[in-house]
Amino acid sequence: MTLPSEMRGLLLVGDGYSKTPSASVPEAMEPYLKPGSIAVPAPGPTQALIKVSLASINPSDIAFITGQYGQPRVQGRPAGFEGVGIVASTGDDPYAKSLAGKRVAFATGVSNWGAWAEYAVAEAASCIPLLDTVRDEDAAAMIVNPLTALAMFDIVREEGERAFIMTAGASQLCKLIIGLAKQEGFRPIVTVRRDEQIPLLKGLGAAHALNEKAADFEAALREVVKAEQPRIFLDAVTGPLASAIFNAMPKRSRWIVYGRLDAEATVIREPGQLIFQHKRIEGFWLAEWMRQFRDRLGPAVLEAQKRFSDGRWSTDVTAVVPLDEAMARLSEELVKPNGKVFVKP
Amino acid sequence: MTLPSEMRGLLLVGDGYSKTPSASVPEAMEPYLKPGSIAVPAPGPTQALIKVSLASINPSDIAFITGQYGQPRVQGRPAGFEGVGIVASTGDDPYAKSLAGKRVAFATGVSNWGAWAEYAVAEAASCIPLLDTVRDEDAAAMIVNPLTALAMFDIVREEGERAFIMTAGASQLCKLIIGLAKQEGFRPIVTVRRDEQIPLLKGLGAAHALNEKAADFEAALREVVKAEQPRIFLDAVTGPLASAIFNAMPKRSRWIVYGRLDAEATVIREPGQLIFQHKRIEGFWLAEWMRQFRDRLGPAVLEAQKRFSDGRWSTDVTAVVPLDEAMARLSEELVKPNGKVFVKP
Repeated sequence: MTLPSEMRGLLLVGDGYSKTPSASVPEAMEPYLKPGSIAVPAPGPTQALIKVSLASINPSDIAFITGQYGQPRVQGRPAGFEGVGIVASTGDDPYAKSLAGKRVAFATGVSNWGAWAEYAVAEAASCIPLLDTVRDEDAAAMIVNPLTALAMFDIVREEGERAFIMTAGASQLCKLIIGLAKQEGFRPIVTVRRDEQIPLLKGLGAAHALNEKAADFEAALREVVKAEQPRIFLDAVTGPLASAIFNAMPKRSRWIVYGRLDAEATVIREPGQLIFQHKRIEGFWLAEWMRQFRDRLGPAVLEAQKRFSDGRWSTDVTAVVPLDEAMARLSEELVKPNGKVFVKP
Repeated sequence: MTLPSEMRGLLLVGDGYSKTPSASVPEAMEPYLKPGSIAVPAPGPTQALIKVSLASINPSDIAFITGQYGQPRVQGRPAGFEGVGIVASTGDDPYAKSLAGKRVAFATGVSNWGAWAEYAVAEAASCIPLLDTVRDEDAAAMIVNPLTALAMFDIVREEGERAFIMTAGASQLCKLIIGLAKQEGFRPIVTVRRDEQIPLLKGLGAAHALNEKAADFEAALREVVKAEQPRIFLDAVTGPLASAIFNAMPKRSRWIVYGRLDAEATVIREPGQLIFQHKRIEGFWLAEWMRQFRDRLGPAVLEAQKRFSDGRWSTDVTAVVPLDEAMARLSEELVKPNGKVFVKP
């Protein structure tokens, strides 16, 4: 494959971290991204350079470009944590070389050369050779959400209680978890922001779907908690909603924060519950999980490909936005509910 | 021993729990306690009736009488979680009978017949026959604080880091922990509310003692945290002070709440730290620890008696208040720093 010397991409405006909380979807991308041309990077010894076919946008990407994520930004480099494409060149490491020419799902991780560009760099270990039966739309969103879903559902399964609670119930991630839960007879309780999402999520397997904006939300929540006794709370939101849910949960409950969609203050309403009810608060980060449970990664990746191939899982597509239109269209596409937005270089 | 039919005691005014947070020391005792006479109770089969010589007042007692503790109040029964006295009668259980006539430290636990009265009821298993070398002032405060100190220092020791942080550094409990820590080469970092407490606590073995009221407190805290890298935070306070400390602590820190002296809102300043820095928030309750680690109780009790006998530990006495004067004097005595207040029936 002949490589050009330059490539187009959506480049980071900021550097490092930001102290200012920002909205979960910015009203405009200009403060965070600018389109530009930069030199095509060379992969390191254990890395692959991938010609990107399609890249996805996750909430963690938005947190990253706004400086709210757990990794520092490098100004002028392309953003985008994951995508799908063809391996165009590799380093000298034998495993990296074995990927040459293959179609892979990839996560850019700490390479600092993200997926919202014509070419991206990823560690070979973070590239997954794909079955032909996996669509580009599924492959481009196959790592961050599906592996997080499998890892977090593992936590639910180990806790042993059938019922568990999730905020942001209509997110792609939660839908994946609902699918896993239904299959094994677990009872997800989810919160949503729109009534029309309720039948959809119940259809997928949610035991209860509560509208957090409803006037009787807290009363409905207490009733459901009393009946179902959920002890795991997978939380993408924090802020007042999450505080209320944790407060209503029974003894020995665990509030597991994996996202921060609400920038409002997160209050522990009754710290006495930590003491007398043995409740606790912790976090989940896929990168940390992969460090701690390396042996579970291979099986999880295979499981994800099978599920996307046979249709048990399927990524809902809100929009596929060409790279050139991204600055103008991303904000309006990202606020639409229920599906995923992709960037097509 | 001939038993009277009636006894005097400080009786609970409230029933069950209260939803209203109250000050760590109430301005008056009347809303919570009233002096009165009631029938001397009969011990159950596995219980002992103790003629109380001296009873202590812990922060957990105040939380209990105001309805903020993890156990419900029973209106009209005496308050008081621990004390020292002579076993006046027992149930028929052989171990209970073996305690007859002995001087014991006792915890009333769930008996609902507390120590702030002429007679109290405790499970025989919660009575500790005393060495003659242990003073009444030490024996009356030998269970709640010393066992909590030994149990929480165990958590510090297991974590492995030399440095750890404690709020309410001048409390009896923290002084006990500082003593344990000094002996094993650990480095306690404590917060206090008065400058004059600083040399005292450094003398006992605190590596750093910071005045939380000082203008440069947060800067001083950051500097100490950077130098010492503490990962365990034993917190009696919650509220803004505890939030600031947890926020300043490094990766993988654990905020362990065991008290709620500040009724102000407890905010998780940066929930992202739970995700990306693997920090977590949990609670400690002696009753829960005793349930989980039954085998550690006997050795801990023996260790506590030895320390009080040979002078390594010693309870600082603020006041010994006769039962008849308690209603009038307790509030003013309890606000005095550095020592413990006792009730003498």
